[in-house]
Amino acid sequence: MQRFALIGAGFIGSVHAQSLAAHPGVDLRCVYDLDPARAAHVSAAHGARPARSLEEAFDPAQVDAVFIASSTDTHAAHLRRAADAGIAALVEKPIDLDLAHAKDVVAHVEAAGIPAMVDFNRRFDRDHASLKRVVDSGELGEIALVQLTSRGPSLPPIEYLKVSGGQMRDQTVHFFDLARWLTGADPVEVHVMGSALSDPQVADIGDVDTSIATLRLPGGALVQIDSVRHTGYGYDERLEVLGSAGMAESGRMRAGNLTRFAGPTATSEGLHPGWFERVQPTYAAALAAFVTALEENTPPPVTLRDGLRAQAIAEAATLSLRTGQPQTITY
Amino acid sequence: MQRFALIGAGFIGSVHAQSLAAHPGVDLRCVYDLDPARAAHVSAAHGARPARSLEEAFDPAQVDAVFIASSTDTHAAHLRRAADAGIAALVEKPIDLDLAHAKDVVAHVEAAGIPAMVDFNRRFDRDHASLKRVVDSGELGEIALVQLTSRGPSLPPIEYLKVSGGQMRDQTVHFFDLARWLTGADPVEVHVMGSALSDPQVADIGDVDTSIATLRLPGGALVQIDSVRHTGYGYDERLEVLGSAGMAESGRMRAGNLTRFAGPTATSEGLHPGWFERVQPTYAAALAAFVTALEENTPPPVTLRDGLRAQAIAEAATLSLRTGQPQTITY
Amino acid sequence: MQRFALIGAGFIGSVHAQSLAAHPGVDLRCVYDLDPARAAHVSAAHGARPARSLEEAFDPAQVDAVFIASSTDTHAAHLRRAADAGIAALVEKPIDLDLAHAKDVVAHVEAAGIPAMVDFNRRFDRDHASLKRVVDSGELGEIALVQLTSRGPSLPPIEYLKVSGGQMRDQTVHFFDLARWLTGADPVEVHVMGSALSDPQVADIGDVDTSIATLRLPGGALVQIDSVRHTGYGYDERLEVLGSAGMAESGRMRAGNLTRFAGPTATSEGLHPGWFERVQPTYAAALAAFVTALEENTPPPVTLRDGLRAQAIAEAATLSLRTGQPQTITY
Amino acid sequence: MQRFALIGAGFIGSVHAQSLAAHPGVDLRCVYDLDPARAAHVSAAHGARPARSLEEAFDPAQVDAVFIASSTDTHAAHLRRAADAGIAALVEKPIDLDLAHAKDVVAHVEAAGIPAMVDFNRRFDRDHASLKRVVDSGELGEIALVQLTSRGPSLPPIEYLKVSGGQMRDQTVHFFDLARWLTGADPVEVHVMGSALSDPQVADIGDVDTSIATLRLPGGALVQIDSVRHTGYGYDERLEVLGSAGMAESGRMRAGNLTRFAGPTATSEGLHPGWFERVQPTYAAALAAFVTALEENTPPPVTLRDGLRAQAIAEAATLSLRTGQPQTITY
Repeated sequence: MQRFALIGAGFIGSVHAQSLAAHPGVDLRCVYDLDPARAAHVSAAHGARPARSLEEAFDPAQVDAVFIASSTDTHAAHLRRAADAGIAALVEKPIDLDLAHAKDVVAHVEAAGIPAMVDFNRRFDRDHASLKRVVDSGELGEIALVQLTSRGPSLPPIEYLKVSGGQMRDQTVHFFDLARWLTGADPVEVHVMGSALSDPQVADIGDVDTSIATLRLPGGALVQIDSVRHTGYGYDERLEVLGSAGMAESGRMRAGNLTRFAGPTATSEGLHPGWFERVQPTYAAALAAFVTALEENTPPPVTLRDGLRAQAIAEAATLSLRTGQPQTITY
Repeated sequence: MQRFALIGAGFIGSVHAQSLAAHPGVDLRCVYDLDPARAAHVSAAHGARPARSLEEAFDPAQVDAVFIASSTDTHAAHLRRAADAGIAALVEKPIDLDLAHAKDVVAHVEAAGIPAMVDFNRRFDRDHASLKRVVDSGELGEIALVQLTSRGPSLPPIEYLKVSGGQMRDQTVHFFDLARWLTGADPVEVHVMGSALSDPQVADIGDVDTSIATLRLPGGALVQIDSVRHTGYGYDERLEVLGSAGMAESGRMRAGNLTRFAGPTATSEGLHPGWFERVQPTYAAALAAFVTALEENTPPPVTLRDGLRAQAIAEAATLSLRTGQPQTITY
Repeated sequence: MQRFALIGAGFIGSVHAQSLAAHPGVDLRCVYDLDPARAAHVSAAHGARPARSLEEAFDPAQVDAVFIASSTDTHAAHLRRAADAGIAALVEKPIDLDLAHAKDVVAHVEAAGIPAMVDFNRRFDRDHASLKRVVDSGELGEIALVQLTSRGPSLPPIEYLKVSGGQMRDQTVHFFDLARWLTGADPVEVHVMGSALSDPQVADIGDVDTSIATLRLPGGALVQIDSVRHTGYGYDERLEVLGSAGMAESGRMRAGNLTRFAGPTATSEGLHPGWFERVQPTYAAALAAFVTALEENTPPPVTLRDGLRAQAIAEAATLSLRTGQPQTITY
Repeated sequence: MQRFALIGAGFIGSVHAQSLAAHPGVDLRCVYDLDPARAAHVSAAHGARPARSLEEAFDPAQVDAVFIASSTDTHAAHLRRAADAGIAALVEKPIDLDLAHAKDVVAHVEAAGIPAMVDFNRRFDRDHASLKRVVDSGELGEIALVQLTSRGPSLPPIEYLKVSGGQMRDQTVHFFDLARWLTGADPVEVHVMGSALSDPQVADIGDVDTSIATLRLPGGALVQIDSVRHTGYGYDERLEVLGSAGMAESGRMRAGNLTRFAGPTATSEGLHPGWFERVQPTYAAALAAFVTALEENTPPPVTLRDGLRAQAIAEAATLSLRTGQPQTITY
């Protein structure tokens, strides 16, 4: 039984609380939040207790691991605290919006030697994981082209976008990670073309909502990622890998399987209304992989270094967007 | 909070235990099984206690409802006990393999006035329920033809088949219910042609493993059900309703969404390996509907009468199989 | 170069005229029709000449083969004439609505020894032929269940239905042939349940427009055919063969490949508006197979006996519809 | 009846000869080729005569229009000759590999006032044309992102690639045209990243076989085109348009409709083996549109200016590939 503290009881924190409560190998001990009422509410729903202080939540006598799901600006400090307490840590991305700061923290955590994992949950999607197995089996031959689609149903609130770090750091970063994971390679160059099309305020804050990123891998293979904030048709996520011997895709997922035929038209269910409905099962799967690593004393399947590298790509991509020029990526 | 006792802690009982534990409006109090070790195991996994006797499990001071998931031959007695105790009951199908006996029990339960529901879980499949809504909306016009496919991946053990009542009563009965539910009508005539093809023992015990049932509804609309025990390609369940103005189907469900293209061929994931993987989400949905009916004091969405009527069709279908002749269905 | 006369210049005759004109190994010499204007029109469009008499059309000095596409009641007489003239014959189904008469004609033609073929064009559908190859390869194992769907978009004119011989002889007969072809077996028993649902006049003339036929093959395998005259959603034709080792289907064919996503819905193109748009390519393919047989002096791929056997099933099916009882099929 | 001369009797010339012969409003008069034997062969197959000289082929007393399907380096001269003779011209792309030269020719042809059309046949694909209608209807709202996939099954011969002008001018140019056509806008900026992955000789001749082009439209909408010479899984062409109110796609086309289910896998037919099988019907459709314009005396649906503009994009794209920098497109 791994004893967990959950740090953060907002929307995503409560999602993780459910996964923690449902996992047969996890004992959710306590929930911490800056807002004690939220901590009380989420802990009560799952038979845990609210933590009255960070000291209590990070007490190595009480917990074996923390799940850091608090606001982005607190991730780094909580990671440090876990490292100092000798407690394992699963942390929401990003480690820190400031890449230099993030690197410092990761060095500190690595020196401490605690098991630590960034929650790149999309790697644990059932179909994406099937695609990864196909790529790793070698049946596609040498990878030539990777095409990733990341399209959300509607523009998030401008207030959120203002502090998000921009589309590359907030949305596309997940797909920079998927590109590295699928190919097993670190891109060397990136070019991004982007536009603010869905709302004039997006341009006002210096961000884009529609973009195409192109990356070059060391051997010359190419990666294309289109990122869209507003689709009008739900959440559309697809991964496609083309190799010298064939292609495989984790395709567009429909919300259901009903089709109606009338006159010349067939009407089917479209995509999931939002990203959450689409990726919901991946949260429990990511947690399960982390718990298995703790139980078996093996390295977590996603490292903090993976987090840094995806962020490094996002930094170069952001610079490309600003300058209009391709950028070399440095890790 | 509805306090439940679970009767039966075998495979399907433990599935229901999970649904009961996960439902926020359910307090799973106790689990009863003829084998105390099984009751102890399943109750411990979900923070409930084992019931040492049926008296304890059906104690109206302790529980508001029972979920009867014990062996088929005990359903009727447990239903009676629930009725006598004034406790609501959700019961696995069938009420009793002997239709006359089943009718007696239902009369007894109805006289007692307890809320009672047969667990025809397939009605609660997300796609099937979408199909039902489309039919009820009238957009298909007058129903002309209903086509149902019920195909299991592999022959169940002969020992199971011997006591199952035969393919019509054990497998096709779910689809007799779906036909009634989708059309809102009681079939008047049935013809079944069947064969034992997958194993000679099936013929030895007087059963079939491959059959086509044709039913006529009062207004002349037709229903076709093909039932297969062994497919070699997983569990295949489909519902299709053709009306005067169009057609809708709850289609063949794939186990996943990965497709590989190589040479002239595209290889995709096939169907679910077994019925359980396919219908698993329906158990929780059926339970939720029952709990909602208890909470809102409304009639459960599937009545015991629905159970009797599906069984009555299965009886006539079994007779048609034996005689080779079409049979009138009497309810 | 095979020199052809075309007998019949109505709708289907003009379709065949195009196939004849386009085939590089065919020299379309003349076109005969009871209506000289139609013969003149169709022959002019393809650089042929109208035949002024049947003698001219069946003149072995002028033609090597005739394509009999005239009205059903003339097929038998034209076949006899071709046999007597020693000219090869490709004939539209049926040979004759009267099965006894048809058998006489076939005996006469076989005695004459001319190459002769019934135009069961659906066997030459690209996807159906692929399915046949899969079945013949043995990869499906022993055939257990065949499911065929035959659904037309709208009720033909009542005047046509009156002389059609009824749904079994006119529509389902194509699928009786496909069942024999796919399985390589002659069904021994048939049961049909049918209704007249789309128009009261269908019942008035003693016909049905919606039916389910169930057939038993010698080894116990089953065949199910649903035949519908009016769908409201275009022409729906599907073939599915389930064996002991897997299943294959020639699936529902869409008219096009455009999909629109908006809100929660995906809208695609439906089926072909009518049977002709769906099966059009099969006419040229069937003709090509006949011409190849003539060129290579091999037996045509569909024999007149195949025509008789499909008709024999249709006779038994018609009797089952009338009596409500299963019928043994005699060939 | 429009009287045509066909210039060029190679592979694509013989394809056009069939379309010309099959069109009811076309009288194919003569076929010219530098190789008289080829001209004789193709003309004989369709009841036309070989032209012994260009003078004969471009004789306005004999023909109303020419179809220029000769080698690329002759297009410009033949267009000039048609203009001087006052004969309508349908010309294979490109007008001339040298854009400046091509512009001169177009100016000359426009001054002459003959009807002239570049054969951008993909615009006449049934599904692509459906997509265009959806875009034009406005139901997708404002266009935000266009994604085009152009993937051939295998690398063309190096000898061909050497004179092709490079991937942008030879392959992607069709999709530059499709992007302009679908959006009704002229891209202002292009960036291309490319690699030679399938054969070292591709790099040796300074070309690429795998590339991603990103284009910006005047209003900020983006276009992405991935071009691949070698897929290993057939010919893959897809068009997708995302707007503010939804998305529509002319999807990946399968070669057939057969699916086999066995064990956990479903195996379907993949894509067409080559581009020709996929786009074959578009040739006749493009010709038909040109003939209709001649008959109705309306402007041809694709102008020579369209050809120049697609080439101008290809020039800028080629420069971007060479320099690694985004390029402004000048028309």
